[in-house]
Amino acid sequence: MKLYDFALAPNPRRVRIFLAEKGIEPEVEQVAIREGAQFEPAFLAINPNATVPVLQLDDGTTIADSFAICRYAEEIQPDPPLMGRTPFEKATICYWQRRIELEGFQAVAEILRNSAERFRDHALPGPLPVAQIPDLVTRGRDRLPAFFEMLDTRLSESAFVAGADYSAADIDALVAVDFAANAAQERPPERFSALKAWHGRVSARPSAGA
Amino acid sequence: MKLYDFALAPNPRRVRIFLAEKGIEPEVEQVAIREGAQFEPAFLAINPNATVPVLQLDDGTTIADSFAICRYAEEIQPDPPLMGRTPFEKATICYWQRRIELEGFQAVAEILRNSAERFRDHALPGPLPVAQIPDLVTRGRDRLPAFFEMLDTRLSESAFVAGADYSAADIDALVAVDFAANAAQERPPERFSALKAWHGRVSARPSAGA
Repeated sequence: MKLYDFALAPNPRRVRIFLAEKGIEPEVEQVAIREGAQFEPAFLAINPNATVPVLQLDDGTTIADSFAICRYAEEIQPDPPLMGRTPFEKATICYWQRRIELEGFQAVAEILRNSAERFRDHALPGPLPVAQIPDLVTRGRDRLPAFFEMLDTRLSESAFVAGADYSAADIDALVAVDFAANAAQERPPERFSALKAWHGRVSARPSAGA
Repeated sequence: MKLYDFALAPNPRRVRIFLAEKGIEPEVEQVAIREGAQFEPAFLAINPNATVPVLQLDDGTTIADSFAICRYAEEIQPDPPLMGRTPFEKATICYWQRRIELEGFQAVAEILRNSAERFRDHALPGPLPVAQIPDLVTRGRDRLPAFFEMLDTRLSESAFVAGADYSAADIDALVAVDFAANAAQERPPERFSALKAWHGRVSARPSAGA
């Protein structure tokens, strides 16, 4: 297997952490996203949608979405389970992944992509030109306090985001919180002590550096 | 089991179709979304996030997201499989679900929620006030032709969205295409004959009326 990666981007990081937790070690190729390599014919032949990460299997077929790659990894390497054991655990992890994606990850992506000069005509991922909308920057910053509070409240009553065990929802939350700090300079207030303590614990796992 | 539903909304429809395909028939309670019942204490006690659908299990626990409910249903009732049999099928269905969500469903939701008077201070789902951004209406309409073309191209080479078999990706695509017609008055051009033929086939399934 080969992972097309971009070390600085959050969606590939989600996959790298997930694979590290599973002990899966694909060959890794960095795609020069900042130089526009994702729009070159060589990469479009791998993923016409011009995004990373892409997992290429040994038969040449590809999986070109971070959630889909994680789903594949969960299936080929069930231990340790990161998407739950029982039906209710699986649904609960999915629920938290959705909330983190919609309320946190997308808010940060909107801040970054609608403000940074390098995304001027690419305010959404993919090959099509999309103009920036400055109001989304404001809206994203307005939304993040509620996202952090939601995580802090949850982590005040639960060791990990989706329950007693570390899961894909913790990976998503870690990636989203770090994405907010790195791409939008937005950090949880100090008073969110449960979120802070959890962040320290999940960041200390070897996978966090993958 | 009990499903908190709103007959006119697309996320509950996704769940109703999925459950119908599985032969799962929960008790159904309509929530008066247009009258703001989701913000009343009685419903907030069921889902503090003020959204439908919510599936309440017989022990009182809840699953409050359409994708999470479908995941639960897939686990408790594996036949017929709607999320794939093999690891690659599961990843491929997940991949198409993500593309449909990001490129179609969210574009329509942005058009509707940023234009309709009833969403004036609720341009995003959830309890927090969010102002409308008119530029998102324009952006959504600009994006939909590419979404329809993506589906038509895919369905020119594949009987169903994710492959040879009907799956959760077809449910999502049907709901997104109908959501575009009903909420944004945007329909695929006649020339997208593969998309049109597929739409006729999936709409003819009894589940489409659920």
